[in-house]
Amino acid sequence: MSLSPYNVPARTIMTPGPVEVDPRVLRAMSSSILGQFDPSFTSLMNDTMDLLREVLQTKNHWAYPIDGTSRAGIEAVLCSVIEEGDRVLIPSFGRFGYLLMEICERCGADVHFLSCEWGEVFDPEEIIKEMKRVRPKIVAMVHGDTSTGRMQPLKDVGYACRENDCLLIVDAVATVAGTEVKTDEWNIDGLITGTQKCLSVPSGMAPITYNERIEEIILERKAVERGIATEEQLLSRNVDRRIRSNYFDLSQLQDYWSPARLNHHTEATSMLYGLYEGLRLIIEEGLEERYKRHRLHERALISGIHAMGLSLFGNSSVKMPMVTCVSIPEGIDGDSVRGMLLQEFGIEIASSFGPLQGKIWRIGTMGYSCQKRNVLLTLASLEAVLLRHGVKLKTGDGVQAAMDTYQSVEQR
Amino acid sequence: MSLSPYNVPARTIMTPGPVEVDPRVLRAMSSSILGQFDPSFTSLMNDTMDLLREVLQTKNHWAYPIDGTSRAGIEAVLCSVIEEGDRVLIPSFGRFGYLLMEICERCGADVHFLSCEWGEVFDPEEIIKEMKRVRPKIVAMVHGDTSTGRMQPLKDVGYACRENDCLLIVDAVATVAGTEVKTDEWNIDGLITGTQKCLSVPSGMAPITYNERIEEIILERKAVERGIATEEQLLSRNVDRRIRSNYFDLSQLQDYWSPARLNHHTEATSMLYGLYEGLRLIIEEGLEERYKRHRLHERALISGIHAMGLSLFGNSSVKMPMVTCVSIPEGIDGDSVRGMLLQEFGIEIASSFGPLQGKIWRIGTMGYSCQKRNVLLTLASLEAVLLRHGVKLKTGDGVQAAMDTYQSVEQR
Repeated sequence: MSLSPYNVPARTIMTPGPVEVDPRVLRAMSSSILGQFDPSFTSLMNDTMDLLREVLQTKNHWAYPIDGTSRAGIEAVLCSVIEEGDRVLIPSFGRFGYLLMEICERCGADVHFLSCEWGEVFDPEEIIKEMKRVRPKIVAMVHGDTSTGRMQPLKDVGYACRENDCLLIVDAVATVAGTEVKTDEWNIDGLITGTQKCLSVPSGMAPITYNERIEEIILERKAVERGIATEEQLLSRNVDRRIRSNYFDLSQLQDYWSPARLNHHTEATSMLYGLYEGLRLIIEEGLEERYKRHRLHERALISGIHAMGLSLFGNSSVKMPMVTCVSIPEGIDGDSVRGMLLQEFGIEIASSFGPLQGKIWRIGTMGYSCQKRNVLLTLASLEAVLLRHGVKLKTGDGVQAAMDTYQSVEQR
Repeated sequence: MSLSPYNVPARTIMTPGPVEVDPRVLRAMSSSILGQFDPSFTSLMNDTMDLLREVLQTKNHWAYPIDGTSRAGIEAVLCSVIEEGDRVLIPSFGRFGYLLMEICERCGADVHFLSCEWGEVFDPEEIIKEMKRVRPKIVAMVHGDTSTGRMQPLKDVGYACRENDCLLIVDAVATVAGTEVKTDEWNIDGLITGTQKCLSVPSGMAPITYNERIEEIILERKAVERGIATEEQLLSRNVDRRIRSNYFDLSQLQDYWSPARLNHHTEATSMLYGLYEGLRLIIEEGLEERYKRHRLHERALISGIHAMGLSLFGNSSVKMPMVTCVSIPEGIDGDSVRGMLLQEFGIEIASSFGPLQGKIWRIGTMGYSCQKRNVLLTLASLEAVLLRHGVKLKTGDGVQAAMDTYQSVEQR
């Protein structure tokens, strides 16, 4: 059994998450512990809610993290809203649409699944037509699906959902803080994100936000837990409609995040330090500036990939700016390339899932990982590794093209 | 909106969690990020499993953390095992017995609840008799309930459960690494602990372990998730018996923690760094040494409390060594005392729940918080604050008695 302290090897992380974290966030996470009801800690909770509202572009009162990884946030929102037999429409354009289906089914929903070819997204009208036909209580969908690198326009869908009295719940795990996500303006009722992507905080928390339409359902299903409930609260509990999970029960969680501070779990202290600092750095950078940065490094990366003679996967008009899917050249073992990149150059890029496994590499440019140095090192190393794998390339051109892109912007 | 970096105020934390964390653990948590499938990270996952088996005193193959706070671990084990209508017997001696009831009910269990007076625990024979009468599939109970500071002897219960083909699932959140918890020897089938108590790691993970008896049930209910399942796996899924939660589905989680590394969530990188280092420090100290340390500081604290003229709550023969419940003197506002302790001395102690609210203070001596300095500072400060609240005390005697206890051990 190993008893040595663990030493993290040096890495440049260019996957769609988890991504590199600003040293200021890591330092914040090494601060000493506070009690969960310490006034200084509850202030930090409130300040984190403020920052989250700003980053999620919402006036919703409820905006707080679930203590778990991204899918914990997705399950918390869905299982708090969905009751046995509720109809849910899931338009899916990649793996994470299946995850929504999986979670909704387990919540007892009557799932209507609409899929499109991987690499494409939906014409909003197609979703709206299906919504009008199925008349679901909820439309649940992914904003940016990292498995294919595509991003679904949501504005028209959101407008139609509101018009038709249908809830729109969006998994924006991969897009928040990397590109425009307008919770309120797009009429999104419930939205989930994750810490380990463009927020650039370690994995382990899932910030969510939801509006009064969702809160209303949650409050109808509220059942304060035994052990802290008053006699009166116990008697008035609507046990039949009670949310099936205790950990993910948003009616209890919002009490914990309210001035009542009704005891639920013990908030993850160090993760909250990290989340606060990560959000603070986002607001300090400015949302617009941050989106612009993600687009710039995407452009440099793409120009390099093209100049090397490689091609991209998927419909470029709906590409996520923070994920670039590169087609693996015919006859090349994609995992062997990734392995050599990691082992010899300490650079990590990702493969994909299902039908795309072995077909594409996915290069992430998210949060703190989204910087010039990382893009240039990745292009240079990828060229070297592909040459070693016998791929015919325009040597030297990839990095030069990216440098040209940067220079053209800097000279402006 | 606050945009300043957050600064943690200086605190001495003497609650039953979250508790102080060794600076070595905090430093480990500030290490840079690794991808979840990086070979160095998957090695760390395996090493953490090794250390967990050692600390949980088990030969079980499965021993890994759930990414969530303690109750996430409890819910994960219970919801993976319990199916609609399963009979569960819950002998409860405090608030956290109610939590088990709450979670089991939400899982659809037919709950049989057995309670005893707060401050006492059960005669094991009483539990065994009830188990034989009710014939449950599962006995679920708490080992040490911090709400009352009592600890239930489990050996006889475990033996009887195994004899009667009943599963024993134990919430040992507050006791592991602070006192003897013998998973295998006591015939515990599933056990959950938390990071923020005697493991002395920040809140946010819940290590669990379970044996083949539980694994068998989980595998029967296994349903690989859409999006990563093969056609064949999809066709063979037992959808009716499928575990209701995706996030807490142990059949998927154990695939993720196996060499297959089947993608589920994105493991909480920094928390795992912290958990590994925390477990490593426990093994370095030695389990026996660590239990002895917890008993020593408990003894010093108790001698100080008694010498001050205060009295303890509950049956002392079944007291948890890491939680000391002090009766609040007649006519004194317990929260006012706690507030002054925090505000003037930067020391945090806890109140309690339900029938004990306003009746007792709970002083924790857990993990890194369990040290001489903390005990002496707490006694000195408590005396000062009580004097300010008009309590008649034997001034000076509390700290002197604790110092005597330490000296008598050091001179041996």
